[in-house]
Amino acid sequence: MSKAVATQNIARKAQTDAPPVTKMLAEFTVSHPSKGWPEAIEDQAHRTFANWAGCAVGPSKHDTVEFALAAINELSPAPQASLLGRRERVDMANAAFINGISSHTFDFDDTHLKTIIHPAGPVASAVLAMGEHLKLSGRSLIDALVIGIEVSCRVGNTIYPDHYDRGWHITGSTGMLGSAAACSRLLGLNALQTQMALGIAASQPVGLREQFGTMTKPLHPGAAAKVGLTSALMAKHGYTSSLRALEAPRGLIQVYSDKTDWTQITENLGDSWEVGLNTYKPFACGIVIHPSIDACVQLREKLKIDSSQVKKIIVRVHPLVQELTGKKTPKDGLEGKFSVYHSCAVAFISGRATEHEYADDVVNRADVLALRSKVELIVDPQMYEASCDVSIETVQGVVHSIHIEHAIGSLERPMTNEQLRAKFVDQSEPILGSEKTQIAWEACMGLAHLKNLDSLFAAITLQK
Amino acid sequence: MSKAVATQNIARKAQTDAPPVTKMLAEFTVSHPSKGWPEAIEDQAHRTFANWAGCAVGPSKHDTVEFALAAINELSPAPQASLLGRRERVDMANAAFINGISSHTFDFDDTHLKTIIHPAGPVASAVLAMGEHLKLSGRSLIDALVIGIEVSCRVGNTIYPDHYDRGWHITGSTGMLGSAAACSRLLGLNALQTQMALGIAASQPVGLREQFGTMTKPLHPGAAAKVGLTSALMAKHGYTSSLRALEAPRGLIQVYSDKTDWTQITENLGDSWEVGLNTYKPFACGIVIHPSIDACVQLREKLKIDSSQVKKIIVRVHPLVQELTGKKTPKDGLEGKFSVYHSCAVAFISGRATEHEYADDVVNRADVLALRSKVELIVDPQMYEASCDVSIETVQGVVHSIHIEHAIGSLERPMTNEQLRAKFVDQSEPILGSEKTQIAWEACMGLAHLKNLDSLFAAITLQK
Repeated sequence: MSKAVATQNIARKAQTDAPPVTKMLAEFTVSHPSKGWPEAIEDQAHRTFANWAGCAVGPSKHDTVEFALAAINELSPAPQASLLGRRERVDMANAAFINGISSHTFDFDDTHLKTIIHPAGPVASAVLAMGEHLKLSGRSLIDALVIGIEVSCRVGNTIYPDHYDRGWHITGSTGMLGSAAACSRLLGLNALQTQMALGIAASQPVGLREQFGTMTKPLHPGAAAKVGLTSALMAKHGYTSSLRALEAPRGLIQVYSDKTDWTQITENLGDSWEVGLNTYKPFACGIVIHPSIDACVQLREKLKIDSSQVKKIIVRVHPLVQELTGKKTPKDGLEGKFSVYHSCAVAFISGRATEHEYADDVVNRADVLALRSKVELIVDPQMYEASCDVSIETVQGVVHSIHIEHAIGSLERPMTNEQLRAKFVDQSEPILGSEKTQIAWEACMGLAHLKNLDSLFAAITLQK
Repeated sequence: MSKAVATQNIARKAQTDAPPVTKMLAEFTVSHPSKGWPEAIEDQAHRTFANWAGCAVGPSKHDTVEFALAAINELSPAPQASLLGRRERVDMANAAFINGISSHTFDFDDTHLKTIIHPAGPVASAVLAMGEHLKLSGRSLIDALVIGIEVSCRVGNTIYPDHYDRGWHITGSTGMLGSAAACSRLLGLNALQTQMALGIAASQPVGLREQFGTMTKPLHPGAAAKVGLTSALMAKHGYTSSLRALEAPRGLIQVYSDKTDWTQITENLGDSWEVGLNTYKPFACGIVIHPSIDACVQLREKLKIDSSQVKKIIVRVHPLVQELTGKKTPKDGLEGKFSVYHSCAVAFISGRATEHEYADDVVNRADVLALRSKVELIVDPQMYEASCDVSIETVQGVVHSIHIEHAIGSLERPMTNEQLRAKFVDQSEPILGSEKTQIAWEACMGLAHLKNLDSLFAAITLQK
């Protein structure tokens, strides 16, 4: 009567008893009081926003942004919201998209070190675009930013590292949830609508690590921002989704991660704040290279020798450094950001690693190539991933070593507000000029006090 | 010196030697000649398009479409492209989105049985929206449709069933690739640009099975259509992605599926046609229930008894039927589509299972509820999933049985063009009226001969 079974339906060990985290996150998003966190978190939220904004202004004329905008312009978008560092306006979903792309283009934005999520990109991009179009206050934007980042990062904590190891770019693949939560908050959705917004977004995760080194890496936070924003709009108008879209046996978290530590969402929700664990990059490249760059900058200052005097640079690191940034012969700036070899060489030569050190011509400059070929990587699984040991042997045979426990920019050695301002200015001045840059910085760092966003946009765009 | 390693980086058994399928699919998309397939495939492409169009018109006033459109209207979209069955026009990306949602709202669209992909939704929605805005010929649309479906379904063949078992809604999670390929073809991109379009789309898969029974299920083909269309636009303007976004160790296919049968892409590409394996639903619900419905309709015609005379309906099926459609007490029409219990009951009572039989009030009608409670499911792993055995025992104790080898609508018992036309008319007439319905049907079935799309849109929308 019956034939052989055509397909096999392998039952995965799905958990049917996961806590209702979609509902919990929705209720948290809706009901947490405005500014319901310590002053240190409020400060950190502003540092996160200002750092993100500078990182979006810096690459605003980069090909990555130009090409994405050219595509969006084919849709004749309505001029609802601004693009940072530019003159054009597009609809709020696409403003979130473009600003999100821009903010990650130089790989210079913030990092939640526990998960390697860049939390601001998806959330701040959506919040700012929606906030502008709906004429909201700075206060409501900061609230939405803190809450959206909490949602993304807690989901990240639940699934990291398995999910990331599998190949997902966790910034995009959790970011649409943070963006959906933040936009739900801005729209004043109720808890059930917010649960739906999270559910709609859950069906649209973004981001593969395979894209690192291409323009599609920065697409991830931009696309996540757009997905979250449109998901919240759909929920506002009654669109439905599963109410257990995150935790169900075939909900997003079990589908895209084998690690599912639900306590990372359920414990202390509303009492501890992931944005407080956010960090800012002093160097314009993948965070895992920062200890090695820091070491090379410090050795440069100590040795005061020309790079031609270097025989060998030996860098001992955690395996993740090689895995993420092991490109031995990067051909352009984008690839250079994923090369510990280039980064160490250029840091020793220049004493820094800003976007300038990842220009295409610098990556291919003779002295940089020469020193790069002398960089040797030793992978040591026992090494803590935030640390490194770097030894430089000179042509005279002298060896100088340094151990970096935590790089500058880490939680243990955070950038000061003054250092953050300098980073903002370095990115913004060539685009906006010094006067507008100063106003923009002040507006970002005082966002919660802005009754409306007019002064911010007057400064941070090229609109008159 | 070094601390315990903070995170474990579990190396998956990634394949580094996969064939270059991203490139192969891009070259195929670009270089395959127009109408380079047998007449039977050309016919099937038109049947696919016409069936899809009718399925998009039918629900065009449904809440699912209304709510999605209300959200998109908040973006003030430019009137570039039409919404089937409606008066409004929106930008081409969002027209693809809304038409894609509409076409899957009644779960009545086409099915590639090898993978349970509904291939037209993501591809036809994108093709029609872009084709309208760019004023392309019907011929180019059919070419793009055949090629886009080929790309989606071959990727589906590569990963099914593992990927689907894991929880992905394979229609959305392969659909953005078909849509990207089809739109690349319409835009006349070269092979490298098309490879980039596939790569950009690969970072934005859509769809969780957890959403079945909610409005987010039909969102999946709509969102996939939109992702593919925008990915092609981005690639046109120079946006870059990994050139191995599909097959790399951390490319999409290895990330979201443990099954990776690359030969499903590499073999006979350009010589065999997946659209030839497409089928069309006579019943407005999940394909796995169709044999059971067919059985109940046939037993109804044979027995000619009132449902009150039925003591028991025993349905023996493959486990997938229970897994996908095991809802015992559906509360509304959407849930009813995922209930073999409701479907068998209403089919026996009404002799059919169109959208009318999945109206909320029908799902809760007393006679339907009474018969539904008499339906018993026997799960049999030895049963072929396209088959079933149904036995009906009357209150007099007489048992009537039937075996369905292949349901009506299957590849073995395909719907005739006349049956497809009747299905189209049943969905379209209440929206467009009979005159426009007739013109729309003819335009769809003769699409390749339309020099422009004006007559099609005049008939299939409410624009004057």
